[in-house]
Amino acid sequence: MTLSTPTAPAPRPLYLDCDTGIDDSLALGYLLASPEVDLVGIGSVSGNIDAAQGAVNTLDLLALAGRDDVPVAVGAAAPLVGPFHGGAPHVHGRNGVGDVVLPPSGRTPAPETAPELLLRLSHEHAGELRVVAVGPLTNLALALRADPTLPSRVRDVTIMGGAGLHPGNVSPVAEANIAGDPEAAAAVLGADWDVTLVPLDVTMVNVLEESDRKTLLESGTALAPWLGELLDLYFAFYVTTFGRRCSALHDPLAAAIAVGGVTPTVAPRVHVEVDVSQGPGRGQTLCDLRGLYAGHPDQAGARCRVVLATDRPLAPHLVERLLRL
Amino acid sequence: MTLSTPTAPAPRPLYLDCDTGIDDSLALGYLLASPEVDLVGIGSVSGNIDAAQGAVNTLDLLALAGRDDVPVAVGAAAPLVGPFHGGAPHVHGRNGVGDVVLPPSGRTPAPETAPELLLRLSHEHAGELRVVAVGPLTNLALALRADPTLPSRVRDVTIMGGAGLHPGNVSPVAEANIAGDPEAAAAVLGADWDVTLVPLDVTMVNVLEESDRKTLLESGTALAPWLGELLDLYFAFYVTTFGRRCSALHDPLAAAIAVGGVTPTVAPRVHVEVDVSQGPGRGQTLCDLRGLYAGHPDQAGARCRVVLATDRPLAPHLVERLLRL
Repeated sequence: MTLSTPTAPAPRPLYLDCDTGIDDSLALGYLLASPEVDLVGIGSVSGNIDAAQGAVNTLDLLALAGRDDVPVAVGAAAPLVGPFHGGAPHVHGRNGVGDVVLPPSGRTPAPETAPELLLRLSHEHAGELRVVAVGPLTNLALALRADPTLPSRVRDVTIMGGAGLHPGNVSPVAEANIAGDPEAAAAVLGADWDVTLVPLDVTMVNVLEESDRKTLLESGTALAPWLGELLDLYFAFYVTTFGRRCSALHDPLAAAIAVGGVTPTVAPRVHVEVDVSQGPGRGQTLCDLRGLYAGHPDQAGARCRVVLATDRPLAPHLVERLLRL
Repeated sequence: MTLSTPTAPAPRPLYLDCDTGIDDSLALGYLLASPEVDLVGIGSVSGNIDAAQGAVNTLDLLALAGRDDVPVAVGAAAPLVGPFHGGAPHVHGRNGVGDVVLPPSGRTPAPETAPELLLRLSHEHAGELRVVAVGPLTNLALALRADPTLPSRVRDVTIMGGAGLHPGNVSPVAEANIAGDPEAAAAVLGADWDVTLVPLDVTMVNVLEESDRKTLLESGTALAPWLGELLDLYFAFYVTTFGRRCSALHDPLAAAIAVGGVTPTVAPRVHVEVDVSQGPGRGQTLCDLRGLYAGHPDQAGARCRVVLATDRPLAPHLVERLLRL
């Protein structure tokens, strides 16, 4: 007779597409600290910051976490249509990481592009690969364009982006990631894969407070104090939104939902159309939430799950995990 | 020495623009039953039903209430741009009043058009006239076009229309009255008057139940039982929305807010843009509600008050007033 010992399930392969970015840094830290995940590759995209700088930031953060094994590929410099407008330095700083100078990793990005990395990983982990996208969806759209069979090899896609019933953040109705490349978002939401959309409805009601930031700053671990430093500028930006120093938790909430650390409780599968017009609604995710008054039933034929509520606040769970790094 | 007796304030002159319509009938009844109001004129517009039939319905309801003194003018047969698409017979019946045959009033509409009536009344009651619009805004836009000084003579405008944070009803984001004539709505919301927008956010959470309908049916008064009859078809339509026979209270809520019977408790003055593009958001009211997280402060320079919450449920107050008729 042998004693059985409980064994954790094998970590699942996950590709992260990001525009690092302060809340991207939190999402990255969360994924690195999560035993459920094997972070097999990261692509950068122009969004909060240009894709090249986003890759540098990502490499620097990985080095701080002792994870120089994770490949980082530079992705699209500009959206599918039109130029890149330079990101959001008033939110994320001129370097994307709150104008904090991170210790340089010394590493260079992978020789492939982010869409190439995603496609390669989709073959290496066919049927198992999870995709988490927390920036504009340009890389995913380019990968779909290069190989329309990609969805058949991807387990699921979790996207931070859009707004269901809450206001937008870059316009009254549009959220920054979707507005950053509406045509790409339309292509990604139109493809045949299992998508979970994590919109402002839930990311804006999950807030990190100054006390949480202090906990990170004082942790004495390798990465967490740096994350606390990055958050300084981000907290200052959010004073105009919340009336106090704090921050919404956009990207880490998508990561936590993908990992299962936070579970959606209201998340109907509904038709979602991206406004790619030149009208005032450009970049809006038009989620058909007219089922509101009947308890949000799923819609026949809809693939995209729109998260409107979750089972618990992210902040304590996020901080607990970040303190592992 | 004389005994002072409390005297009610003089009734205020009010012009109603409507597309009668089942919930329009409730709004009309509410206004006729309200001592705060002197209903000095009514214009019809194509919306729930064509403008000509809407005027007939309005005249018939006025006759039942013994109010043949109120002038009714036929308004615009079609929106500013494009054809009238035939209304909503699946909601309001083929005749606009739930396919109920009302006793004919024997009256004919006024010889002037609805925009002409509105302009005339704005002179006769300059500075005092209230406008309540519960259909597409074509007549108001035509009156503004004919005389851009109209707003200077109007006390305020209360509009049933649009959606702030709630879903639309004729598209995921657009509400029927605004979608019925987006160009007119843009003109009306762009004019220099004090507008209160009563959107689906509040009209969909004010619901009339079968027990209320029974009360109207059994009242034995002149008009209320007829209103109970009209509501039969409307209640059947709303089963698909609410999962039970009942109805939203769109138009009567706008009337009650204009009269003061119901008071807005959350109603920020914010910039509102109407989507007049041909994109998927056409007809949406893009209300800038990004102040949500800071308690909905007013925006500098914004004229339009968007009602998001009210002080009490409309249904009991509405039923109480309708039983007077």
